[in-house]
This record gives sequence, structure tokens and C-alpha cells, in this order.
Amino acid sequence: MNLVLYDYWRSSSAWRVRFALHHKGIAYQSRFVNLRASEQLTDEHKKLSPLGVVPCLLVNGRSLCESVAILEYLEDVVPEKALLPRDPWRRARVRQLVELVNSGIQPLQNLIVLDHLSSDEGVRQSWVRHFNQRGLVALESALASVDAEFGSGPYSFGDQVTLADVYLVPQVATAIRFQVPMDPYPRVRAVFEECMKLESAVASSPQNQPDAPKKP
Amino acid sequence: MNLVLYDYWRSSSAWRVRFALHHKGIAYQSRFVNLRASEQLTDEHKKLSPLGVVPCLLVNGRSLCESVAILEYLEDVVPEKALLPRDPWRRARVRQLVELVNSGIQPLQNLIVLDHLSSDEGVRQSWVRHFNQRGLVALESALASVDAEFGSGPYSFGDQVTLADVYLVPQVATAIRFQVPMDPYPRVRAVFEECMKLESAVASSPQNQPDAPKKP
Repeated sequence: MNLVLYDYWRSSSAWRVRFALHHKGIAYQSRFVNLRASEQLTDEHKKLSPLGVVPCLLVNGRSLCESVAILEYLEDVVPEKALLPRDPWRRARVRQLVELVNSGIQPLQNLIVLDHLSSDEGVRQSWVRHFNQRGLVALESALASVDAEFGSGPYSFGDQVTLADVYLVPQVATAIRFQVPMDPYPRVRAVFEECMKLESAVASSPQNQPDAPKKP
Repeated sequence: MNLVLYDYWRSSSAWRVRFALHHKGIAYQSRFVNLRASEQLTDEHKKLSPLGVVPCLLVNGRSLCESVAILEYLEDVVPEKALLPRDPWRRARVRQLVELVNSGIQPLQNLIVLDHLSSDEGVRQSWVRHFNQRGLVALESALASVDAEFGSGPYSFGDQVTLADVYLVPQVATAIRFQVPMDPYPRVRAVFEECMKLESAVASSPQNQPDAPKKP
């Protein structure tokens, strides 16, 4: 399987895919798309990604977009080091945590929405914080409900790293970057800190990508 | 399997779940949550749905939220009248179409975002139209790409009704409600019109729900 990831270091959606590829130990090549330079909106990139976004994965030359579609595909074809439980109900509950972030937080505060909203940095920051806080309250409550139903563990869904963690980590990193206080979400924060001990999370993190700006 | 759907007639996300339940011929009971009266934000409802949204499905008394998680679960436990192809690559491409709507259009223009944006009806309408148009351009292009790869048919993914249709139909209905001109998206519109000949789409549509306002 030849994999080429269209990637941008700071994209939280791209981090999800990098996290899973590292977790499963799947080799891939990178093509960097500089979102700040609007490279995602070129006709060439839109042939691969209709919405003009990253991540986008070329699988043996064929394009696949949307992080959920990419990650479910990787799970289907590389079931080792599973990121979803086998039991349908448990899978469903992990997918609920995934979508709470994927459709419930990230899209409401991504660059596309912010750029349409305002060029005023204060307005943008306040918007990002509002929707992160709303989502984190829900995530904290959803994790408590999962703990109550299945038993607690270091990760979002007990002892196993799952797609729920793959979505939680980049979202929490975004919230921290926008100075959202994390004290009200102790369980979310504990999962984030535990995940950031994983080699797969660290290696895939924004600051460790080749296209990240070099520190002075 | 005892199913209770927390539902609201006009919720496009709830329509997706109703559409799939009707398609698969799965019996369910309804509990109506009036979003206009903020019933989704009560402590009681938030115990079931951390984000305070519909749809939410009680499965033998246990709560499951997020339309993607619900629909993947129904597919796992009731594989008959499949809404996903079996081949992993084809499943992935259907899921890409699903997420194009689920995370790429609907969250950017839902009631939660609009209520935070402005109470001015003109501002709200313009926002809804902008993100529907952006998404519909992408969806038209994604459908063309699917047609080129797998061959065209009456539905989003060839001859088979899939989850891609289950997401397309309520989104297009929203776009039409907000008077987005559909001429630039002939393939999307044709799929919508074909789907609206299906008993499952009609029976699950907003105006045919018991909690819809009665016509004068």
C-alpha cells in the first residue's frame, strides 16, 4: 500500500491521521500544503480534496479525504493495533466520542469559519474559546458516562488507545493554544496528558513536523 | 432491540437517523424534543446527550448520540438493506461523502452557530447560504469524482442507496429552505430528487413527523 498524506503541521484534522499512522506503524510519504499560503485552494489540490482541505490521503494513487473516512479505512485494511473495539456497542460509543469532536467542536471553530467571521483577532479568539468550552463541557460529561458504563482507565475508553483519543488530543491542544482554561475538565486533561506520553502522539504532533516553522 | 429516538421534526441530523431506520424497516418509538423551546438543554436531556442535541437513540435503555455513531451501529447490528458497500475502499468513499456533509457543511450552519452569531435574520440567512454553497460546490465535485471512479447511477454512489444519500437529502432540503439556488449543482439535485421518490425518505421527512406544526 503506497500512502501519500497531504498534510499541514498545524491542522488538527491532519494530526489525527498522523497519530493513527504512527500508532499502527504504517509508513507514508508527506506532501505539505501550506494553509496559511492558501495552497489548499489551488485547482490542483481541489482535484484531490473537493472542499480544499487537509488531510487527504492518496492510497495507491487514489484520493481519500475526511479524517473519519481515512481512519475507518485504515482500521478496515490494517486491523492490527486496533483503534476501535470489536464489540458493536463499544465501537458505537467510541464513535460518539469521535464525532463529538469531529462534528461537534472542530468545524465550528476552524480556520474556514474564522476567516468568514471576522479579521478581528479578539472576535476570532472569543469565538474559538466559546465553542471549545461548550464542547469540552460535553466531552467531560461524555467521558464520565463512558467511565460509568465500562470502567475507567488512562485513556478515553479505558485501557485501550482508541480513535476517541486520536480526536481528543489535537482538539485539547487547540483549546490550550487559545488559552482555554482546562481546570473545569480534569478527566479530559488527564487523558490528554496520558496520551502525550505516547510516542505516536508526540511524533505526530505539530511542532515535530518537517513543515513547522523552526524555533529561533 | 428496543429503540427510542429523541427526535425533532426539523432537525436535519435527526432526519438522517429516521431515514435509515425506515430504509432498514427497524421499528422505533419517538420522544419529541422541541428545539425551539430549548428542551434539548434541560439537565434531563443532557444526561442522554452531553452536547444537548438530537438525535439521540436509546438502545435497550442505553443512550447513543451523534448520527454517524448511531448509523454505523445500526449498520453493524442490522446489516440487511446495507447502507455501506462491503469493499473497504468503496465504504471509505461513501464515508467521505457522509463527512463532507456531516462535518463539512451542517455544523458550520446549524442553529447553535446561528444563535451565537447573530439574532439578525439577514445575517443568519447569508451565513447559511454561504456555507451551503461552499459545501454544495464540493459535493457536486465529489459526486463527479465518484461517478468517474465507479460509474454513475441514480444515487450518490451508483445504484445502491447508501449513507451518502442519507446525509445528502436533509442537507439539500435545508439549502432549498434557505433559498440556495440549486442550478449550479445538477448532480446533487438529481440525487435528491431521485431519493425523494423513496418511501423511506418521504416517511422520514420533516413535514411528515407527528411533531411538525399542522398546516392551516
